[in-house]
Amino acid sequence: MNVAVLGVGLIGGSIGLATRRRAGAHVCGYDPDERVRERALELGAVDRMASDLAGAVEDADVVFVAAPVGALAETVRLALQSARADAVVTDVGSTKRLLSEVGSDERLIGGHPLAGAETAGVEQAREDLFDGAVWYLTPASGSTAGVLYERLHRLLTSIGARPAAIDAETHDRLLAAVSHLPHVLANLLVAQAAGTLERVSPGRLPAVGPSFRDATRVAGANSALWTDIFMSNRDALIAAIDEFAERMAGVRAELAAGDADAITEWNESARVEHARLLGATGGEDAVNELRASVPNRPGVIAEIALALGGAGVNILDMALSPSEDNSQGVVALWIAGERDTARARELIAGLGFAVALA
Amino acid sequence: MNVAVLGVGLIGGSIGLATRRRAGAHVCGYDPDERVRERALELGAVDRMASDLAGAVEDADVVFVAAPVGALAETVRLALQSARADAVVTDVGSTKRLLSEVGSDERLIGGHPLAGAETAGVEQAREDLFDGAVWYLTPASGSTAGVLYERLHRLLTSIGARPAAIDAETHDRLLAAVSHLPHVLANLLVAQAAGTLERVSPGRLPAVGPSFRDATRVAGANSALWTDIFMSNRDALIAAIDEFAERMAGVRAELAAGDADAITEWNESARVEHARLLGATGGEDAVNELRASVPNRPGVIAEIALALGGAGVNILDMALSPSEDNSQGVVALWIAGERDTARARELIAGLGFAVALA
Repeated sequence: MNVAVLGVGLIGGSIGLATRRRAGAHVCGYDPDERVRERALELGAVDRMASDLAGAVEDADVVFVAAPVGALAETVRLALQSARADAVVTDVGSTKRLLSEVGSDERLIGGHPLAGAETAGVEQAREDLFDGAVWYLTPASGSTAGVLYERLHRLLTSIGARPAAIDAETHDRLLAAVSHLPHVLANLLVAQAAGTLERVSPGRLPAVGPSFRDATRVAGANSALWTDIFMSNRDALIAAIDEFAERMAGVRAELAAGDADAITEWNESARVEHARLLGATGGEDAVNELRASVPNRPGVIAEIALALGGAGVNILDMALSPSEDNSQGVVALWIAGERDTARARELIAGLGFAVALA
Repeated sequence: MNVAVLGVGLIGGSIGLATRRRAGAHVCGYDPDERVRERALELGAVDRMASDLAGAVEDADVVFVAAPVGALAETVRLALQSARADAVVTDVGSTKRLLSEVGSDERLIGGHPLAGAETAGVEQAREDLFDGAVWYLTPASGSTAGVLYERLHRLLTSIGARPAAIDAETHDRLLAAVSHLPHVLANLLVAQAAGTLERVSPGRLPAVGPSFRDATRVAGANSALWTDIFMSNRDALIAAIDEFAERMAGVRAELAAGDADAITEWNESARVEHARLLGATGGEDAVNELRASVPNRPGVIAEIALALGGAGVNILDMALSPSEDNSQGVVALWIAGERDTARARELIAGLGFAVALA
């Protein structure tokens, strides 16, 4: 398999290392920075460096666009212009509606690995960066070609990631809640603490405790990266801020009323939800194979992947087999655990496709 | 030295272990829970257990009240009733204005170690719990007896803590900003993320990233403890929430205006302040001795300690020497580093006392 990586920093470099070593891919890279191109070659992140974007992309089966958020849409557009008709083009940007600017193309599947958020550069690239990491994919249920989705899904699984399909808007709201908003709060906490400490003890800051350290660990993350992230997802982030302000006004009212029972209840429910959120990891259950008969049209695999992804069902692996006349096909899906397998059957049947355990 | 510890959980037990082993103190404990009394004796957290509060306190030079916040003021009041006229009584509660309920008493000095916030129980008590930890003291500048402040300061230093004087109201505003508000935000973040994920992916929660884990590590902390902390400091906490809401509205407006430069500037300043806040640790500089002549009246040592604490100057050790006729005294202060020593001289001179390097 030929893989192209456009932008060879921490993420792009790690994709190169992982697909070369774990999937036996031949990796061709491109980066606008000449020093990065040289260093990536030295580190073995790519087999070959192209001297321009088109040259990196032209032979690729899978193209990863790992450009900064600000240059992402344009780089994806250029990649689609130069990529083969049967190539899949994906990205690693942390907001996904951005890609809608590029327009509809059955070869384009948005992507976002939950790993290595900082722009640490190719020096920090690692083959195992994506081990066990959720890798969101945003296929378009109207257009994405099933064979391309399958190819990308298998490649990501082979490098250790856990691909999960999700629609672009849901992805962006989710990331606003669990990543962008925490960054905003950390920044605000730091500013407020610094202001308070400055009033209290001018010229010198007293030590702060471990809860503050934890709460602000991501404060002031790389501005080059995070300004783009905040701006590209600003409507979802503003909605998350508004919801947060409302929740905060609620607890403020309980404090002002001196309602200790309400505060206890609120704190207890945070304890329970916290345990649930952090306990949400994959199980070690036995793997089942499901087979579904589907019409051979673009978007079908995306529909199934999105339905399962939306229900939190992890697809360990998938395979497509078209019928003789190419009008129908069978998709085989491997799912861990009885509960998830049963849920997947229900969901696929709910989409109107015949499905059975293999 | 005789030490009494009222309430022998994680903090009280650690005070017992540390003062026994490091300060050679004889420690008498009391806890309303009989099983805790037995266990604390077995673990060596105390030399002796009294069968009631008065019995634990009557011979003590220093009394530590480590009762839960809800029972704190009442326990301090009872301790003052039974304590000797020349004993010092202190507590470990996380809000300090609470003690004003008890009324003015020159033997009472509020305290709050920044260590071991969770009510983990005496099983987790450790001799080294306070090593390097800031231990806030809130002497009253009108009344606290200098000799008692000195005794407490030296005892805390001998068990590894770094005592820092601060006035009670400032302490509570500070803790609202760097501890109570972060706990509130963590709880709210968890509730919001759980709500968002539930809407997005009902019945199952997708994995969350490391920034969310960090930001919410303290979410849903022990309700028995934290409801009391939130309630006892609720006016300062409400003020902190209001300031936070205002700051959040500011960044929301910048996002809504699409002002990328303002967002970058805001993020950069968080980066700088974050580094400053976390870098605020004690230096390893040479130690200087300052000597100040002070009138021998209650509150003088508190004034000096508060002035230095407010400027972030750490007093490594102190010693009081009264004059023959007891009307005057000399206080010796050991301060690390040229800068802090110079600052301490200025501050003490500013209070109207003669001061010089020894």
